[in-house]
Amino acid sequence: MSAPQKQALTVLGLGDMGSALTRSWLAAGHPVTVWNRRPRPVPDGAEPAATAAQAVAANTLVVICLLDDASVRETLADIDLTGHDVVNLTSSTPAEARALAGWIGERGGRFLDGGIMAVPSMIGTPESGAYVFYSGSRAAHDAHAEVLAAPAEVTYVGEDPGYAALYDMALLSAMWGMFAGAAHAFALIGREDISPVEFAPLIVGYQRAMAGYAYGTASQLASGDYAEGVESNLTMMSTTNDTLRRTAAEQGVSIELLAPFMALMERRVAEGGGRESTTGVVDLLRA
Amino acid sequence: MSAPQKQALTVLGLGDMGSALTRSWLAAGHPVTVWNRRPRPVPDGAEPAATAAQAVAANTLVVICLLDDASVRETLADIDLTGHDVVNLTSSTPAEARALAGWIGERGGRFLDGGIMAVPSMIGTPESGAYVFYSGSRAAHDAHAEVLAAPAEVTYVGEDPGYAALYDMALLSAMWGMFAGAAHAFALIGREDISPVEFAPLIVGYQRAMAGYAYGTASQLASGDYAEGVESNLTMMSTTNDTLRRTAAEQGVSIELLAPFMALMERRVAEGGGRESTTGVVDLLRA
Ligand SMILES: NC(=O)c1ccc[n+]([C@@H]2O[C@H](COP(=O)([O-])OP(=O)(O)OC[C@H]3O[C@@H](n4cnc5c(N)ncnc54)[C@H](OP(=O)(O)O)[C@@H]3O)[C@@H](O)[C@H]2O)c1
Ligand SMILES: NC(=O)c1ccc[n+]([C@@H]2O[C@H](COP(=O)([O-])OP(=O)(O)OC[C@H]3O[C@@H](n4cnc5c(N)ncnc54)[C@H](OP(=O)(O)O)[C@@H]3O)[C@@H](O)[C@H]2O)c1
Repeated sequence: MSAPQKQALTVLGLGDMGSALTRSWLAAGHPVTVWNRRPRPVPDGAEPAATAAQAVAANTLVVICLLDDASVRETLADIDLTGHDVVNLTSSTPAEARALAGWIGERGGRFLDGGIMAVPSMIGTPESGAYVFYSGSRAAHDAHAEVLAAPAEVTYVGEDPGYAALYDMALLSAMWGMFAGAAHAFALIGREDISPVEFAPLIVGYQRAMAGYAYGTASQLASGDYAEGVESNLTMMSTTNDTLRRTAAEQGVSIELLAPFMALMERRVAEGGGRESTTGVVDLLRA
Repeated sequence: MSAPQKQALTVLGLGDMGSALTRSWLAAGHPVTVWNRRPRPVPDGAEPAATAAQAVAANTLVVICLLDDASVRETLADIDLTGHDVVNLTSSTPAEARALAGWIGERGGRFLDGGIMAVPSMIGTPESGAYVFYSGSRAAHDAHAEVLAAPAEVTYVGEDPGYAALYDMALLSAMWGMFAGAAHAFALIGREDISPVEFAPLIVGYQRAMAGYAYGTASQLASGDYAEGVESNLTMMSTTNDTLRRTAAEQGVSIELLAPFMALMERRVAEGGGRESTTGVVDLLRA
């Protein structure tokens, strides 16, 4: 007697991420039907479908990993979704995810949105720390718990279908800023006889060591007291900004990536926040 | 018989950082003479001097931790530095540090510049990971190795007195970018019913997990092949940028902190780098 077959599913999209997801499901023993708009290599063991409609028809569970919300709309436009559970791992905005949930619901499907917090090489390797935010239909989430757990850890953040996208976009922002800072750092040392490969561990180590600053920001946002426990005051930091500007000029590097953050710090000082931390910048972004 | 007395030193500047440094030397058993321009609390056990000149005259080793290069110049202007070893832990640019080294050398002192990679609460606590970049006189560095090691780990980066400042400013950039990204993330969730204190660990965890991206950037900068090993291509990331812009608009948040980085990514795509990683942004900053 063979083991009971694991749940089969369909994956629409065989880009870098869709392929990695597909391979992780195949490795976990799930039969996978795949479709991609243009010809792309089909992961070993997957079943290619000729059209998106045929791929959807093959399984109850349909996972989508395309470029953006517009490509998802275009791909699903004429397809019958009655009785299907649609899990969208395509990046979208909260409002787009909410609208898509409504659109799919009207057409007889259940909807779960996901935001992948990983690059493809982290998918299917639990020790990588990869995880996916999910939000939307709790029933769809519960029905497919085993399938969803194969590529990465599952973090369900609520029934609002927009929340996975919001969490995803918030963490993407945090990452973009970090990458921008690293890019500026590499540019600064680039005109000297310093190897980027030897310098990289310093950047990585310092960003990891200082990431915890966000705990202080959160605690100040919650209390409303932005001078609470400050040991690096905004007046001093604004002066350091000038030093950073002069350093960039000396090294022939554009300051454009950091200029807006420094400008908001200084606006806060001008408005009387010199004894504070950088927390007030958050308010200025929402003003 | 009492233990031999540890080396005495002078500290100019009792701001947040100068005070923390002073306390760490006192805790390690070093007698410390201190001076501050305006009245400030004197750390327990330190010896206050009435003028900066008197503070300098008291010891061979003089540590300076003031606001910026201009305040250091102003403070040392009329003071005899013959035979003194001056360690400057004030943030400055590489060129300012080099000029200060020359100025102090002409006046009979030896010069060591330092860039502190820590906030005050990390000083004197080895497990915090705090360290200081030093560059300049190797003789001064060697002569005071024991003293220098008390507040934080010593990382000597060469005889060029500008290097400590360059390393410092590069890592400060990396940190500023990371803080800017976190600020944008907090702003995005701020209009929803999500607690910043509960969200903070997600930001911190993701930034720590993704900081290693800089290793890939460094390796691509070294090889010159910016498409090497790419699993998140720039065309896809540019599309995600649009999603992020729409998300910010939906949440009523200004995109200003991330806009310049996204613009450079897109400029690189327009110039034919769509299959690359974000590494080309570094070159655009130096153009
Ligand atoms: N790679 C990552 O690091 C990463 C991380 C987290 C989240 N994501 C998200 O995962 C999704 C896919 O990313 P990826 O890295 O796999 O991108 P990718 O390698 O560039 O692949 C893009 C995929 O979208 C398809 N596509 C584009 N426009 C389409 C349209 N109008 N109709 C149908 N299909 C269309 C492409 O099909 P063709 O082959 O026919 O062009 C391809 O399958 C994106 O939303 C991305 O934000 C990616
Ligand atoms: N705090 C941190 O997290 C941190 C981290 C790394 C590096 N640093 C660097 O450490 C240095 C000091 O920072 P801090 O946090 O101690 O700043 P702070 O708390 O704002 O103290 C500034 C110090 O500079 C003095 N000062 C300012 N202008 C002066 C002038 N024209 N002449 C003489 N003294 C003057 C102040 O004296 P008065 O009391 O008389 O105004 C005070 O002692 C800065 O270069 C900073 O970049 C700080």
